[in-house]
Amino acid sequence: MCLNVNPERAGGAYGYGDMGSRIGGQAEYVMVPYADFNLLRFPDKGQTMEKIRDLTCLTDILPTGYHGCVSAGVTTGSTVLIAGAGPVGLAAAASALLLGAAVVVVMDFNKERLAQTHSFGCETLNLSEGGTVADHIERILGVREVDCAVDCVGFEAKGHGGAEQPAIVLNQLMEVTRAAGSIGIPGLYVTEDPGARDGAARTGSLALRFGLGWAKSHSFLTGQTPVMKYNRALMMAVLHDRIRIAKAVNATVIPLDQAPQGYADFDRGAARKFVIDPHGLLA
Amino acid sequence: MCLNVNPERAGGAYGYGDMGSRIGGQAEYVMVPYADFNLLRFPDKGQTMEKIRDLTCLTDILPTGYHGCVSAGVTTGSTVLIAGAGPVGLAAAASALLLGAAVVVVMDFNKERLAQTHSFGCETLNLSEGGTVADHIERILGVREVDCAVDCVGFEAKGHGGAEQPAIVLNQLMEVTRAAGSIGIPGLYVTEDPGARDGAARTGSLALRFGLGWAKSHSFLTGQTPVMKYNRALMMAVLHDRIRIAKAVNATVIPLDQAPQGYADFDRGAARKFVIDPHGLLA
Amino acid sequence: MCLNVNPERAGGAYGYGDMGSRIGGQAEYVMVPYADFNLLRFPDKGQTMEKIRDLTCLTDILPTGYHGCVSAGVTTGSTVLIAGAGPVGLAAAASALLLGAAVVVVMDFNKERLAQTHSFGCETLNLSEGGTVADHIERILGVREVDCAVDCVGFEAKGHGGAEQPAIVLNQLMEVTRAAGSIGIPGLYVTEDPGARDGAARTGSLALRFGLGWAKSHSFLTGQTPVMKYNRALMMAVLHDRIRIAKAVNATVIPLDQAPQGYADFDRGAARKFVIDPHGLLA
Amino acid sequence: MCLNVNPERAGGAYGYGDMGSRIGGQAEYVMVPYADFNLLRFPDKGQTMEKIRDLTCLTDILPTGYHGCVSAGVTTGSTVLIAGAGPVGLAAAASALLLGAAVVVVMDFNKERLAQTHSFGCETLNLSEGGTVADHIERILGVREVDCAVDCVGFEAKGHGGAEQPAIVLNQLMEVTRAAGSIGIPGLYVTEDPGARDGAARTGSLALRFGLGWAKSHSFLTGQTPVMKYNRALMMAVLHDRIRIAKAVNATVIPLDQAPQGYADFDRGAARKFVIDPHGLLA
Repeated sequence: MCLNVNPERAGGAYGYGDMGSRIGGQAEYVMVPYADFNLLRFPDKGQTMEKIRDLTCLTDILPTGYHGCVSAGVTTGSTVLIAGAGPVGLAAAASALLLGAAVVVVMDFNKERLAQTHSFGCETLNLSEGGTVADHIERILGVREVDCAVDCVGFEAKGHGGAEQPAIVLNQLMEVTRAAGSIGIPGLYVTEDPGARDGAARTGSLALRFGLGWAKSHSFLTGQTPVMKYNRALMMAVLHDRIRIAKAVNATVIPLDQAPQGYADFDRGAARKFVIDPHGLLA
Repeated sequence: MCLNVNPERAGGAYGYGDMGSRIGGQAEYVMVPYADFNLLRFPDKGQTMEKIRDLTCLTDILPTGYHGCVSAGVTTGSTVLIAGAGPVGLAAAASALLLGAAVVVVMDFNKERLAQTHSFGCETLNLSEGGTVADHIERILGVREVDCAVDCVGFEAKGHGGAEQPAIVLNQLMEVTRAAGSIGIPGLYVTEDPGARDGAARTGSLALRFGLGWAKSHSFLTGQTPVMKYNRALMMAVLHDRIRIAKAVNATVIPLDQAPQGYADFDRGAARKFVIDPHGLLA
Repeated sequence: MCLNVNPERAGGAYGYGDMGSRIGGQAEYVMVPYADFNLLRFPDKGQTMEKIRDLTCLTDILPTGYHGCVSAGVTTGSTVLIAGAGPVGLAAAASALLLGAAVVVVMDFNKERLAQTHSFGCETLNLSEGGTVADHIERILGVREVDCAVDCVGFEAKGHGGAEQPAIVLNQLMEVTRAAGSIGIPGLYVTEDPGARDGAARTGSLALRFGLGWAKSHSFLTGQTPVMKYNRALMMAVLHDRIRIAKAVNATVIPLDQAPQGYADFDRGAARKFVIDPHGLLA
Repeated sequence: MCLNVNPERAGGAYGYGDMGSRIGGQAEYVMVPYADFNLLRFPDKGQTMEKIRDLTCLTDILPTGYHGCVSAGVTTGSTVLIAGAGPVGLAAAASALLLGAAVVVVMDFNKERLAQTHSFGCETLNLSEGGTVADHIERILGVREVDCAVDCVGFEAKGHGGAEQPAIVLNQLMEVTRAAGSIGIPGLYVTEDPGARDGAARTGSLALRFGLGWAKSHSFLTGQTPVMKYNRALMMAVLHDRIRIAKAVNATVIPLDQAPQGYADFDRGAARKFVIDPHGLLA
């Protein structure tokens, strides 16, 4: 986590409100600070252009999903529960398979997104069908627990009726993660949420059933993804067809002026990751 | 974390309410299940009797404090904040020094307990003097952060006026732990606290400023200590005078019939760990 | 590495000359000491019988190949060189893919064995074609180095003319493993080789170009595989079709009385692993 | 291990024959390439000057000894054998104690150097007294093995009569390191030694009893020390008096023009590390 790039606090990112002054990452051109350090060189131009949809995912979504799985301890033979089938969840699910997981279960309310995860080999857990998470897990795995859990939802989590319940996902994951297991948390939790309905949420305070996690010796690993820790390895995996991340996140190329529409679709829960292509290179 | 010894849930302990049926660990005799696996053999009887006060601490308090530090990532040159100067905090502080920490700061309201930590080389942070934790840390270290933090208080944490505030210690530790740092949590958090004043606490729910920890990429490591993971190494450290744990926790030998008085003294905040000696072996 | 099961030295194995008195592992029945600890329970009988050829590989060959790769640091995106395409090499190659390696190159003199590795996705390096190993690697990868190397040959290594050169594989791997890389060594090196031609080999002494490895900060990880460390995770990977190990090692079921013929075929370099089935269960 | 700073191979160092063109590290002034990355800032000037003898050791000798111990797996309660009581061995011995080792045994032929290690708490093993290494270890520890071993001698190792035996130290360490233990090897082994008497040594080839190490599942970790991995942590340990490295290596300040005499003394086995002070700052 870089201590220097962002004068306000540790960590920096392009075009991200709370992470330094590099606003406007979705633009025709981006100025790259410390470019000798920050850029990743692809070995071959032709190969790059062939895989450009996939390689674009190295900038953010693939390392984020992968980091969530690594934080959760996903490895050979793991059973994994991914909460949330948005782009981060899709990338986490694909990463879990890359890491050798035996079974990857993805949980969401959104049928279309779940169908997307099913398309590349995941089991699906549709929360809108009711029932406890443990019951669903038992139906799928034969036991009521998973080895590893990844929270790809964050503070915008909602309960059954659609009301915001910022702690519900973490509380559910504690219920079904095995003793001594880890919960990777790439889903965003904010220090302040000025628009929240209740005072606790406004100060980023969560009603966590922490005692439940403690009794099971859980570990909770949080935070922004250290992209550079993973990007070379993931580039190699992409270039050699070990993961088809563009397909997994349903990467959809749009020109810059369709970005607002892309955000609107995303907010409606479209099962896709939009890749903005200002110069028509990916057309 | 043993999945089998306790039929009710993962993990077991002697004489511990929620951890299996082995009630009554403080007794004249204890029956040891799976003794071929569970016991640790000391190499030499004479040496054992010489160090018996210290070796007794291997059963629980030393591994617990040490595990808290290991969980927090304490290593050579670390700056460490230990919350709580009860027996677990004292053992954690001594363990942090054994692990090569540069500076160990112990935080408590209790002057006598803080004096005890000072006696073996720790810096002290007296919460009853007021001021923020970060201000105190800055006065001691010159910076407002520590590398590692260990919560040796748990859910019985209290605020300034003495009112229960179960999340206050964890929230304070997030404030002063550096970006990407770890918080080791040997302090107990319970799944249920039927006697608690408010409903949230009754279900083990904590008002955690989780978003703050997330923004700093903190890791939270919880749970009962896996004693057998550490006891041989710590035995070697004790036998070769690398840690004087009995002195650090102010081990005080009492006969079995004084145990109720020991508990009363402990509840009043005595800066000592009572070692019950039913057969007068340590006299 | 168990310190107790074998009175003569650390580590034990069934039917293995130098590793305890459990002679005769290839028999109609095997007596399992400490069976409550040593056995791995499969979750479901029907599923077990369906995958029995693959699950049989959990007893030895799959954990051995996997351990070699883990020792070599194989992970997402690695380029890997496997020396030797016998059963251990085949299992290591399949394991490297399971671990997410980008490219797995297998090196051998034997065309048939190399074809077998090619059948499940490996690149092949045929030493009988001449040329340096680095030249072959460059042809395949575009660079003259690999991230990780696994020695699945051991002390019976031979040079071009077929003469025994016990150190040649390790020396070759040092040449092409990148700086700070690891070399996993499941291939057997013996403390004594009474039948060897020269005195050095008779005492298990190797003419290693250790200075070359040192200049590249290599790590060398040796020894028998700790099977129980891996078998549950690998069982899960097998049961959920994440690795097809029986196909990878070309598992060939034979009755007990054909075992001598199996050994003879193996000595001639047959690209297969024989699975002895004394009771006709796999027929 | 930096892949770029040295055009000839991975890794670079100042004034080191085989590691880049930065010749002449022992000079009035040194030009520091990539200084924004390479330098370590001390927090306070006054404190720095007080500890300057110790802090000087951060440039090389302390990280080297520490890295050797970390490579060997030294941790709380370890029993450690350090081969060689020259400056690297002295720094390794002091580092082992910092890492919490229970017992540190240092082995050498040189009585004066051994006395130096004894002065800060190590056990000594004088090879000139004869007997096997295992016998000496048993006399000191009561068992014939150590948990961890560090080779601080390298290829210039000599046997009893004083003849060069480049593999003798590694072979001895394999004899007495416990099963599954690690051998850290900061001692230098060269790719070529043109002045060596026999052909094998001239090509950096060692007659290693590798089969012995393999049978014990040893790991061998080699190479130049990654100084920047450790220097901040060790700086903190030095500044807070957790290690007195200048005293441990018997740091002896000399002006630049006495460097030749320092080298001569070092070659004769003086139990000290010379610190060259071209500008009289440490006088």
